[in-house]
Amino acid sequence: MRIGMIGLGRMGGNMARRLMKAGHQVVVYDVSPGAREALAKDGATESGSLAELVKKLADAPRAIWVMLPAGSATGQTVTELAGLLEPGDILIDGGNSFYKDDIARAKKLAEKDIRYVDCGTSGGVWGSERGYCMMIGGPKEAVDFLDPIFAALAPGCGDIPRTPGRKQDDPRAERGYIHAGPSGAGHFVKMVHNGIEYGLMQAYAEGFEILRNKNAHDLPEDERFALNLPDIAEVWRRGSVVSSWLLDLGAAALAKDADLDSFSGYVQDSGEGRWTVEAAIEESVPATVLSAALYARFRSRQTHGFAEKLLSAMRFGFGGHVEGQEPVDPAPKGATPRQPAG
Amino acid sequence: MRIGMIGLGRMGGNMARRLMKAGHQVVVYDVSPGAREALAKDGATESGSLAELVKKLADAPRAIWVMLPAGSATGQTVTELAGLLEPGDILIDGGNSFYKDDIARAKKLAEKDIRYVDCGTSGGVWGSERGYCMMIGGPKEAVDFLDPIFAALAPGCGDIPRTPGRKQDDPRAERGYIHAGPSGAGHFVKMVHNGIEYGLMQAYAEGFEILRNKNAHDLPEDERFALNLPDIAEVWRRGSVVSSWLLDLGAAALAKDADLDSFSGYVQDSGEGRWTVEAAIEESVPATVLSAALYARFRSRQTHGFAEKLLSAMRFGFGGHVEGQEPVDPAPKGATPRQPAG
Amino acid sequence: MRIGMIGLGRMGGNMARRLMKAGHQVVVYDVSPGAREALAKDGATESGSLAELVKKLADAPRAIWVMLPAGSATGQTVTELAGLLEPGDILIDGGNSFYKDDIARAKKLAEKDIRYVDCGTSGGVWGSERGYCMMIGGPKEAVDFLDPIFAALAPGCGDIPRTPGRKQDDPRAERGYIHAGPSGAGHFVKMVHNGIEYGLMQAYAEGFEILRNKNAHDLPEDERFALNLPDIAEVWRRGSVVSSWLLDLGAAALAKDADLDSFSGYVQDSGEGRWTVEAAIEESVPATVLSAALYARFRSRQTHGFAEKLLSAMRFGFGGHVEGQEPVDPAPKGATPRQPAG
Amino acid sequence: MRIGMIGLGRMGGNMARRLMKAGHQVVVYDVSPGAREALAKDGATESGSLAELVKKLADAPRAIWVMLPAGSATGQTVTELAGLLEPGDILIDGGNSFYKDDIARAKKLAEKDIRYVDCGTSGGVWGSERGYCMMIGGPKEAVDFLDPIFAALAPGCGDIPRTPGRKQDDPRAERGYIHAGPSGAGHFVKMVHNGIEYGLMQAYAEGFEILRNKNAHDLPEDERFALNLPDIAEVWRRGSVVSSWLLDLGAAALAKDADLDSFSGYVQDSGEGRWTVEAAIEESVPATVLSAALYARFRSRQTHGFAEKLLSAMRFGFGGHVEGQEPVDPAPKGATPRQPAG
Repeated sequence: MRIGMIGLGRMGGNMARRLMKAGHQVVVYDVSPGAREALAKDGATESGSLAELVKKLADAPRAIWVMLPAGSATGQTVTELAGLLEPGDILIDGGNSFYKDDIARAKKLAEKDIRYVDCGTSGGVWGSERGYCMMIGGPKEAVDFLDPIFAALAPGCGDIPRTPGRKQDDPRAERGYIHAGPSGAGHFVKMVHNGIEYGLMQAYAEGFEILRNKNAHDLPEDERFALNLPDIAEVWRRGSVVSSWLLDLGAAALAKDADLDSFSGYVQDSGEGRWTVEAAIEESVPATVLSAALYARFRSRQTHGFAEKLLSAMRFGFGGHVEGQEPVDPAPKGATPRQPAG
Repeated sequence: MRIGMIGLGRMGGNMARRLMKAGHQVVVYDVSPGAREALAKDGATESGSLAELVKKLADAPRAIWVMLPAGSATGQTVTELAGLLEPGDILIDGGNSFYKDDIARAKKLAEKDIRYVDCGTSGGVWGSERGYCMMIGGPKEAVDFLDPIFAALAPGCGDIPRTPGRKQDDPRAERGYIHAGPSGAGHFVKMVHNGIEYGLMQAYAEGFEILRNKNAHDLPEDERFALNLPDIAEVWRRGSVVSSWLLDLGAAALAKDADLDSFSGYVQDSGEGRWTVEAAIEESVPATVLSAALYARFRSRQTHGFAEKLLSAMRFGFGGHVEGQEPVDPAPKGATPRQPAG
Repeated sequence: MRIGMIGLGRMGGNMARRLMKAGHQVVVYDVSPGAREALAKDGATESGSLAELVKKLADAPRAIWVMLPAGSATGQTVTELAGLLEPGDILIDGGNSFYKDDIARAKKLAEKDIRYVDCGTSGGVWGSERGYCMMIGGPKEAVDFLDPIFAALAPGCGDIPRTPGRKQDDPRAERGYIHAGPSGAGHFVKMVHNGIEYGLMQAYAEGFEILRNKNAHDLPEDERFALNLPDIAEVWRRGSVVSSWLLDLGAAALAKDADLDSFSGYVQDSGEGRWTVEAAIEESVPATVLSAALYARFRSRQTHGFAEKLLSAMRFGFGGHVEGQEPVDPAPKGATPRQPAG
Repeated sequence: MRIGMIGLGRMGGNMARRLMKAGHQVVVYDVSPGAREALAKDGATESGSLAELVKKLADAPRAIWVMLPAGSATGQTVTELAGLLEPGDILIDGGNSFYKDDIARAKKLAEKDIRYVDCGTSGGVWGSERGYCMMIGGPKEAVDFLDPIFAALAPGCGDIPRTPGRKQDDPRAERGYIHAGPSGAGHFVKMVHNGIEYGLMQAYAEGFEILRNKNAHDLPEDERFALNLPDIAEVWRRGSVVSSWLLDLGAAALAKDADLDSFSGYVQDSGEGRWTVEAAIEESVPATVLSAALYARFRSRQTHGFAEKLLSAMRFGFGGHVEGQEPVDPAPKGATPRQPAG
C-alpha cells in the first residue's frame, strides 16, 4: 500500500526503507532536504512540504506515519497535518509521545473524523535489520487497515522459539506487534517497556561495577580478583539465567574496550523512565527498582547536587568533620568498613 | 574421563546424565538410595558412601564434584572427603557456596595438596538440555585437567551469534565456561550473576504490575486500559530491547495463566543476592537497584514489619490518623493523588 | 481582625479557637451543624451557609480561611466563594492542595480581583497548643494584610534557641511562618516538608525494626540481643544526633506499648509524598530516599502485588522453585545468609 | 572516682574535661604529648605510656576508657592493655567499634577476668556542653560500677519534657544513657543510631535540593520559585513535624551561607551505616531508606562509576546515542520530561 513517512532520521529513514523492501510505496518528508534526497535515491517519492506529501497520497483514506524524536515537534506536525487531511485519514505517531498527549490528540482529531494511531516502536538502530517491535493504540478499524504496514515493519516469527503453552490470543504478538488497546495504550506499553529497560540496564551496570571493583586495593589480598569482564559477559550469554539482548550489547561493548574508556558515564534519560515512575505513583505501585534506575541517571549528570553539600554541612555541624575536597579515583575504590571515621 | 558426583538432586542428577551422554564415567553418591539407583539405571556407578565412592575412583588424580544445595552440607562433605583423598586429588564445589568460604576451604585443603575448584553453575532445570553456564575458580592446572568435564557440561557455541569485535581472550567463554580466577572467583562471579538476576526480575515484575494496575478503578476513565499481559510479554520477546531469557520464562508463565493465581507472591531469596549487596558495600559501589530487588523479596515474606507499625504509630501521634485496619485488595488499587488525606 | 473559617474539623476548629484566644473575631461555617455549634459555644459567630458567612464578614476586604481535608472539596468551595466575594477580598487555602492547582486557582480568581493565598500548615493535632508552622504563597499585600492572623496562629519564638549566625532575612521565620513566594509557593514548601517527613519516619521505622529483629532466633546465640525499644527511643531523645519531634512521638508510642500491637501497619499516604517525588522527577533530583519511603507505604497496603507473583513465576520457570505458601511471622524472622536455597 | 582516658582527640579530651568538672580524677594518655599536656593543664594526671597510666590507676578495680577513632587502633590498644591489667579491671571502648568485634574481645578478656564494656557515644563536638548520649553493653556489675562516670558524661534530664505515658523501665534512659544488653549491644544500638542518622540526613538533603532546584530554568515560568532556603529551614524548626536537631544544624549552615559553597559535596561514611545495612540483611529487614542513604554517600565520592559507563555503552549499542561529554551545572538543572530523546 501507499503511506507517508514524516521524519527521516535514524528511525524513520530505516523504517521507510524496510517498507519499500516489502513492496510498499512511501512518500517521504523531512525538514532536511538531504535526508529526503537520500530516501528518494532508495526509491521513495520525495515531497517538499507537508501539503505536498498529503497531495501525493492521493487515495483515501491516506495513512501518514510521523516519526519525530521530540514530543513537541510531533504535536506541531500533527496539528498542521490535521488542517490538511480529510475525514477517514489516518495519522500514526510512531515516536515516544506521552500517552496522555495521545489521548488528548486522538480526541481532537476525532472531531474531524481523522483517526489517530499511537505506535510505540522498539528496536533502535537494529530495527532495520531485525524488524521493529510495535505496541499499537487506537481505533480497531484503523489498526486493522494498517496491518500490511505493521506486518512489514515487524520482525515476524523468525527463529525465536514459540512460547510453550501460549494460546492464540493475538496472533500478531508472535510476529512482533500488538494492538494494545485504545488511544494511548500503545505508547503506554512502550513507556513501561522503556521503564523496564532502565531497570535491566542498571542491574547489569551495578553488577559489572561490583565485578570490576573486586580488585580494589583495600580489600584483603586473597579476596581481590582481577576479573576479565569481557569473558564474563560472554559466558553469561551462553546458558545463564541473565542472558538477554542488552547483555549481548554489553558484551560487544566490553569486547571492544574492557575499560569502556570512550564513554563518559554521563547518561541521558528520554522521558519514558520518568513517566513510568509517575504512572507507578498514580497506581500506587512500589516501583523501587525502576525509580532507582532513573535516579542513577539523574545523578550521573550532576557533579555534586545540593543534597550532598547539605550532608557535608550537617556532618560538619555535629562532628566537625571537614570532608576531603578531591573526588577519589572511582576505579580502585573500596571499603574501609572496619575503620569508622567519626 | 572418570569423575565422582555427590548430590543427585535436580542439578547433580542431570549433570551426571549429561556427562555420561558425553562419554564420561560417573561414580555417584547421594544420601537417598533411590536417587543413587535412578542414576545407576542410567549408567552410573553407584556407591553407598563417600569412602566407597573414593575407592571406586581408582586412578589418581581423582576428581569429585560436590553438588549439594546448602552451604553447610557442602562444608561437611568437603571436610569428610578431605580425610579420604590423596595429594593431587581434585574437589569441585558446583553449588552456591559463599566465595569467602571457598577461599578458606581451598587454603585448608592445600595443606594436604588437595586441589579445590569452586564452580558457579547457572542454568537451573533447563541446564540438562541447554547445557550449564559455568564460572570457575581455583588453580589453573586443576581447571585445565578438568576441561573435558566442563566442556561436556557447557552448552557449547550452539547457534548463539558471536559477539562482534570479540578478541580471543578465553575461547572457553564462547562455549559457556570460564576460568574466572583463583579460589573463590568462580563463586564470586556466580554470586554477582544472581544479584543481577534479582535486579532483572524485579524490573520486569514492577513493569508488569504497572501494566496490570493500569485498569485501576480510580484512574480517569479514558486513561484506564485493560492490557493483555500475555500478549505484551510475547511481543517484547520479538525485536524489543527488553527481550531476554527471563522474559521468555515470564511469557510462558503468563501464557499459562494471565493472573498468575497459582503463585502466592511469597518470594524466597537464596543467599547470593545478600552477598552481592554485602560485596557492593565492601567495595563502596552504590548498588541501589540490586538492593531494592533484594528488599522487595524480604518484604514479600512479611505481613507487616515492625517498621510499618511504627509509621502508623507516629502518624497517629502527630495527626490523630487511625489507619484502616484491612489490607486493600491489591488488584484494583490506584492512586488518589489529588486527594490528600491529612 | 475579623476572619471567616470554613471547615471545622480537627485542624480548622482548633485554629479558629486559637484565633479567638488571640482576640480575633471568627465567623465559622461547616457542613456539620454540630461542628458549627461547638465553635459558637466557644465564641465564634455561626453561619449556616457560605453566603451567610460572606454576609457576616461585612467589612472589605473580607478574609476567608478554607480548611478542608480533600483537594476536591477545597476546589468546589473556592469556586462557590468566588461567586460571592468582591474585588479585594482574600481567600486562604490552609489545606494540603496541590501547588499547581493553587497557581491555576489564583489566576482564575485574579480575573475578579480576588486575592488567593495558599498556606501550608504543619503542626497536626498539637498545633492548637504549640502553634502552627505556616508556609505561605501569594501576593505580598494580601499576605501582609493577613499578618495578624498568621502571627496569632504561629507558635512565636517561644524558648526554641535562635539559630547561630542567622541574619535577619525574614523575621517572621523565627516566629513560625514565612512568605515563601508567589501563588503555589506556600503549598510547594509544605509539600516538600511532608516528603521529608515520610523519609524521616521511614528512617526511624527501619532502624527500630532492625533493633527489634536483633532477637531473631536464627542469628548466632551471642549475637542476639533482647533490646528494650522504649528505653532506646528515650535515650536517643537526650543528647543524640537523631533527636527530633518525630522521635518524641515514637518514644511516646513505644512507652505505651513496646510491641505497637494496636497498630495494623497499614499506612496511608496523603498526596504530598507523591507530589514531592513527581517534583523531584521534573527537576531531575535523584530523590532515592523520599521515593523509597513513599513506596514502603504503597507496599504496606498490598497483600501481595502482581510483581511478587511474577517473581515467583519466573523462579519456578528457571529453577522449579515452589515458593512457601504461608507468610512467616515477621517478628522472629532472620537471615539464613549462608544457606542458599537454590 | 578515678578513671583512665586513652585518646584525647575531640571526643576523648572533652569527655575527660567533663568528668573532671563533675569531680572525677582522670589519668590521661595520648600518643601526642601536646594533647596530654593540654589535659594536664586542665587538671588531669598525665602519663607517658599505657603502662604508666595503668600504674597511676592504683586502686582495684581499675577503669580505663579507650576513645580512639579507628577500630584497628582500638583493637591494638585493648590487646596491649590486656597484658597490663588485673582480674576485675574494667575496659570501656567508647569509640565506634563493630559490635561483633566487641563480642570477640569481651570473650577473650573474660578469660583473664577483665571486664569489657562497649559504649556507643553520640553527641559529637557538642557533647562537652550538652552531655553525651550513651548506649552501653557488657556485664551488669561493671556497668553499675561505672555509673558515676556515665552519669557525669550524660546530659541528665535537663529541660527536655518527659515522654507522656513512660513507665519507669530504666530510669537512666531519661538521664541520657542506657545499659542496652550484653557485650556488643551498646555498639549495636549506636550503629543503628548512625544508620538512622544517615537516613534522616539524606531525607533533608533531598528535600532541600528539590526546593533549591525549583528555580530551574526549564520549568514553566509560573511554576518556578526562588525559595529562601535559610528561612524555610528556620520556619520548620518552629512547630513543624520535621523539626529536629539535625535540622537545627542544617538551618545554622544555611544561615551562614545559603549556597553552601564552602562544602564540596564529597561525603564520607564512617562504617556504622554499612554495618547497619549488613545487619538489616542478616535479619531480612527491607531497609530501603537506610541503604539508599548509604549509597548516596558512595556515589558522592565517585566521578563516574563503571556502572554509568556501561549504561552509556549499552545505550550506544541499541540506539546509537552518543552521550554528552560535559556534566551539566547541577544548579539550574531541570526536567525535559515531555521531550524524549530516543
